[in-house]
Amino acid sequence: MKNLTLKDIATALDLSITTVSKALKDYPDVSTNTKKKVKAYAKEVNFTPNAYAAYLRTQESKMIGVIIPQLNHYFFSNVLKGIMNAAEEEGYMVIILSSEESYELEKKQVDRLMKQNVDGILMSIADSTHDTEHIDNISKQNIPLVLFDKYSKLSECSSVIINDQNAAFTAVEHLIKSGRKNIAHLRGPLFPQNSIDRFLGYRKALEKHQLPYKKEWVFTCHDITSDEGYTYAKDILDKHPEIDAIFAVADMPAIGAIKYFNEQNISIPEQIAVMGFSNWKISGLVTPALSTVNQPGETMGRKAFELFYEELQLRKKGEKFAPKIIEVETSLVVRDST
Amino acid sequence: MKNLTLKDIATALDLSITTVSKALKDYPDVSTNTKKKVKAYAKEVNFTPNAYAAYLRTQESKMIGVIIPQLNHYFFSNVLKGIMNAAEEEGYMVIILSSEESYELEKKQVDRLMKQNVDGILMSIADSTHDTEHIDNISKQNIPLVLFDKYSKLSECSSVIINDQNAAFTAVEHLIKSGRKNIAHLRGPLFPQNSIDRFLGYRKALEKHQLPYKKEWVFTCHDITSDEGYTYAKDILDKHPEIDAIFAVADMPAIGAIKYFNEQNISIPEQIAVMGFSNWKISGLVTPALSTVNQPGETMGRKAFELFYEELQLRKKGEKFAPKIIEVETSLVVRDST
Repeated sequence: MKNLTLKDIATALDLSITTVSKALKDYPDVSTNTKKKVKAYAKEVNFTPNAYAAYLRTQESKMIGVIIPQLNHYFFSNVLKGIMNAAEEEGYMVIILSSEESYELEKKQVDRLMKQNVDGILMSIADSTHDTEHIDNISKQNIPLVLFDKYSKLSECSSVIINDQNAAFTAVEHLIKSGRKNIAHLRGPLFPQNSIDRFLGYRKALEKHQLPYKKEWVFTCHDITSDEGYTYAKDILDKHPEIDAIFAVADMPAIGAIKYFNEQNISIPEQIAVMGFSNWKISGLVTPALSTVNQPGETMGRKAFELFYEELQLRKKGEKFAPKIIEVETSLVVRDST
Repeated sequence: MKNLTLKDIATALDLSITTVSKALKDYPDVSTNTKKKVKAYAKEVNFTPNAYAAYLRTQESKMIGVIIPQLNHYFFSNVLKGIMNAAEEEGYMVIILSSEESYELEKKQVDRLMKQNVDGILMSIADSTHDTEHIDNISKQNIPLVLFDKYSKLSECSSVIINDQNAAFTAVEHLIKSGRKNIAHLRGPLFPQNSIDRFLGYRKALEKHQLPYKKEWVFTCHDITSDEGYTYAKDILDKHPEIDAIFAVADMPAIGAIKYFNEQNISIPEQIAVMGFSNWKISGLVTPALSTVNQPGETMGRKAFELFYEELQLRKKGEKFAPKIIEVETSLVVRDST
C-alpha cells in the first residue's frame, strides 16, 4: 500500500497541510474538533510519517552516524565529504557528531547514535580515548562499525588507515637526501597511534642513515596548532641553531614555523627546511609553499562508507563478516620549503 | 512505562543482544524458532526501538537538518560548529547535507529532510538557486526554517545574516584612508545576494570618496578560489599597472593574489595592498598576513539554531511566530597586507 502523506490527509479533509501537521502534533492553535477529525482519519488510513513507516517495514533507518574528533579540521572535513558523497549514492543520510577529542563526550555520542537506531557508525577515535569498551559495544549491538584515521589496534572492527610510519619515514628520508643532517621533529600528543607511528618513522629514517637522534630535538605539539609550531621555531633558532630541517606531525605546526622564520628573515629551505604532513589546502598557499605528505581524506571517507555497506549487506544475508583493514596510499608532495 | 531495550529482551529470553537484534531484523542466520520467540516477546512487551518510541510519544524527532552549499569550506564549517554545539545543548542531533551549490540537489535535499521528519531545517542557499518554492514549502509543512548567510529576501522565514554592504564599504574605506586611489574588486558570482551586496559596498565607498569606478577593474570569481585570485593578479600586473589595491569578495582569491605577487617580488602593501573578506584561519598564516573582514560563522550558526528553537517552542504553544532577521556584527581585521 502506498504510504499516505500529510498532503493526502489535507486533501481528503479539505484542510491545509499546516493544520494537519499541527493537529497531529497536538498544537493548541488547532481546535479540538479538527484535531479529533484529523487523528481519527490518520488512524483509519493507518498514517505513519515517512521515515518511520519505512523503518517499520525494513527495520533500517537509512541513517549512519559519524563521530569525528574535531569540527572545522581540514582533513576531517575531507573525510566527511567522502563519506557523505558515498552515503548519498546509496540513499543514506549522515548524522555528524563531534567528540572534541574527549573520551567522555565520545562515549556519550556513541550512546546517542545507538539510541537513534542508526544502521552503522563510522568514527575516528579521540586523542584522549584509552579504553575502547564503548567502541566494542557497538559491534555487540549488531551495528556495523568502521574506524578511520585514528583507530584502535585492539578493537575487532574494520578500519581505514594510512601507513603513518612509512609515510613519515619517506618524508624524513626526503629531507636527508637533500643533505639535511640535524633534523628536528614537532611530534603530536603521546596517545594516538598515528602520532606514535609518525615519530617512529622519523626515528627509523635517522637510524637507517646513521644520523643523530636527540631527545631535545623532539618537541611535543599537544594541540597540533600553528601557534605551537611558531613557538617551537623560536626555541629552535634560539637554542638549537645547529638544526637544519624540521619534520612536523601535521601541516599546521609546520606553517606556524614557516611564519616565524619568515618574520626573522630566515631563508627556507636554504637555512632550514620545513616538512609538514597531511597536505591541507593551505600548505600550497603559504610562501614558500610547504612540502608535505598527501593524506587522501576523501578517499578514506569513501572507503569507510563502503566497508560499512559491505558489512551491512553480509549481516543481512546472515553471512560472516571478517573485519578488514584498508590501507590508503599516501604520497610525498615536494614544494618549495625543502 | 519504561521503554524496553534490546538488552532487556536479551536478558528475559537468555539470548545475546546481537541475536535479538538479528531476529527482529529477520536476518537469515537466526533460526526460525528463535525469531518467532523474539518477535512474540517484543510484541507482548510492546517493544519499539528508542528513537521511534520517543517520536511516537512526542511527535518530535529531536533531529534537525542542515543544508550547506559546500562541504570543506572554512566559513561553513564554522557555522556548522555553532549549530552543532547549540543543538547538542538542547539534545538535538544534526543531519548534514550539501547542495554542492546546485539548485536541483538543494531541492532534493530539502525533500529528503522533510521525509525524515526533522523538527526543523537550517540552510544556506546555493549560488545557482533562483526559485524559492521548495524553500517556501518547508514552512507550509509546519517545519521551522532558518536561513543563514546566503538567504533569500523573498522567503518568509527567519534569517541570520551579516550586513555585507556595510562590511564591504568599511573594508574599501580602510584602503582609501591608507591612500589608495585605484582600487580593483575581485567580485563573486552574479546571483547570490552577498556577492551583490559586497560589490555595492565597494562602489559606495568609491563614490563617497570620489574615486574612479571602472568596469575593467572588476573581475568576477565564479568559484571564489585562490586560483582565480592568482590569475587575476597576473592580469592586473600585466594590463592595469595603475591599480594600487585589491578588495576581494573572499579570502581565497585574495590569498591567490598574494601568492602571485610574492612570486613576482611585488611588495605588499607598498606596491599593492590586498584586502580579503571572511577571516578564514589561513588569512592570518600567509605572508604577509591578510587584512580582512571577520565574519563570525560560529556565532551565526548558534543564532540560527536559537531562532529555530524559539520558533518551535512558539509553534508548540500555538502562538504566532513572526520571522526574524538577525544581523551579526562583523569587524575589520587589519594585518600586514594593507
